[in-house]
Amino acid sequence: MDERLKKQLDFSLEVDKEKNIFRQTHLSGHGRNENDAEHAWHMALMAYLLKEYANEPVDILKVMLMCIIHDVVEIDAGDTYAYDAEALKTQKEREDRAKERIFSLLPDDQKAELIALFDEFEAYETPESKFAHAMDNLQPLLLNNSNGGADWREHDVSSDQVYGRQSKTRLGSEILFREVVDKLIREHMQKGNIKE
Amino acid sequence: MDERLKKQLDFSLEVDKEKNIFRQTHLSGHGRNENDAEHAWHMALMAYLLKEYANEPVDILKVMLMCIIHDVVEIDAGDTYAYDAEALKTQKEREDRAKERIFSLLPDDQKAELIALFDEFEAYETPESKFAHAMDNLQPLLLNNSNGGADWREHDVSSDQVYGRQSKTRLGSEILFREVVDKLIREHMQKGNIKE
Repeated sequence: MDERLKKQLDFSLEVDKEKNIFRQTHLSGHGRNENDAEHAWHMALMAYLLKEYANEPVDILKVMLMCIIHDVVEIDAGDTYAYDAEALKTQKEREDRAKERIFSLLPDDQKAELIALFDEFEAYETPESKFAHAMDNLQPLLLNNSNGGADWREHDVSSDQVYGRQSKTRLGSEILFREVVDKLIREHMQKGNIKE
Repeated sequence: MDERLKKQLDFSLEVDKEKNIFRQTHLSGHGRNENDAEHAWHMALMAYLLKEYANEPVDILKVMLMCIIHDVVEIDAGDTYAYDAEALKTQKEREDRAKERIFSLLPDDQKAELIALFDEFEAYETPESKFAHAMDNLQPLLLNNSNGGADWREHDVSSDQVYGRQSKTRLGSEILFREVVDKLIREHMQKGNIKE
């Protein structure tokens, strides 16, 4: 088999491992923990459906690709919970090593393309990156809300922590922040699911 | 909250259920059964990486969207195994009912758009549909091959059955059929994992 095609298939098989990386978020219906592949799929679909709420016009293909690949590095680096201060300190270094190893399975041009896309997502600067991050924040919020805020209670999360993360959602979408995120956070603070 | 946004979020939450619809395919490393959301994510990523092998030029955003939504109906209709003749008889009717219920959660314009996309995928006529179907066939083949053909052995699948399904892969990509699919099928027939 052609070397290029072989590399593309090797990468395609490698990313299968994302289905075994579990997040802190639980599926709706008080289900099991969600894995990275499911989360990425859900984000990509939501990005397409909610693209009209992006603060700036976005190249939706690029947004969806960012959603689809943004957690590939967790195959090696594992999932870092958004409110785990210790793990967050080493996250960048662990993920950089993973990025190099995993994307190197691809042919050089596709390696360069996907790393550029991954770095653009991480840099939080372009409209596409900001909107993809908004989905990265909104998708677990939607699930957690459907479960009565159980994920926040379990981790004893405070409003400062939630707002610290979710305030960035407004960089991607003022409307989704104001009409969904902010309202849900206030509701869950009132119910005591998020500590004041 | 605005009615349109509420409908979009209701649909976004409903599709979470795809993560509980399990397929006959097993994850690499002799893992558990794969679910529909993971399968859709994997197909979308592979479609992007392998798009250069499509028989005709494709709108890759459209292909990826087809990959992402093509199994939504299984939330109600369940997964129908490709080689289960009895279940295949009622598949269309079960999936039509599911399609109407689930996409009706969306605002009318998005319901119409996603149903058109779903129907286009099912009709197997456009270059995008054919290439998305090629991914639908290639992705589980890749996993099954990585597990030594265990899924074929478990279901006592014959070469006629595998070729019956996989011959359609060539409608989307002659190269992937010839260089990957056909070679792997012959290899697994020789090893006795697929009955002659």
